[in-house]
Amino acid sequence: MLYKPGLHILAKLGKCNNQKIKSALQIKPIIDTFIANNQLCNLGEVYHQFSEAGFTAIICLSESHLSIHTWPEHDIVNFDIYLSNQEKVNNNTAKSFFETIVSYFEATVINSQFIER
Amino acid sequence: MLYKPGLHILAKLGKCNNQKIKSALQIKPIIDTFIANNQLCNLGEVYHQFSEAGFTAIICLSESHLSIHTWPEHDIVNFDIYLSNQEKVNNNTAKSFFETIVSYFEATVINSQFIER
Repeated sequence: MLYKPGLHILAKLGKCNNQKIKSALQIKPIIDTFIANNQLCNLGEVYHQFSEAGFTAIICLSESHLSIHTWPEHDIVNFDIYLSNQEKVNNNTAKSFFETIVSYFEATVINSQFIER
Repeated sequence: MLYKPGLHILAKLGKCNNQKIKSALQIKPIIDTFIANNQLCNLGEVYHQFSEAGFTAIICLSESHLSIHTWPEHDIVNFDIYLSNQEKVNNNTAKSFFETIVSYFEATVINSQFIER
């Protein structure tokens, strides 16, 4: 079977909800639900709450990974989702997750890149 | 303090050493040593060895993250490192880690992108 590039979405978000951008605990069920509803496979994860502000969430998927780094002091979220298309085509799932996260943070997309790799 | 974009390097490697591309266990000390020698901070990690072939390694850093997805059946490694420049400028560290990984896999760089974000 030929290698099929997957879609990697990188984005910077701004004008976020100023409570949600601070809390790793609050976003976890949103991510867990999305993974379950879209038949993705979580292989392991790291949620880290910084004491001063913000959090990092990284989820390792059998389809690749997703990461969220928040900077409440700058009102910025750096977002990545990268999903393989090898077993099935996941492009729409990647786009849907991106929309879910933008909606969750009630954010504006400052910039985004869609890279097939 | 203004937000300072960090460097994210995305790359696809080929012509890899056909043993190293298969083993999560073998690469771990290379990554651990690099992190220790460059004063990066590992907040948590996931190493997943796929039973059929290949592995995924994702390391959450206080400076952001790195990820390695290997596809021995296609002789492809998908590599990411993303390091914040907020506390100190880490661009050279990101480039050095990229070179370390290319050298480790004895690989050819098929393509790479350097994104400031």
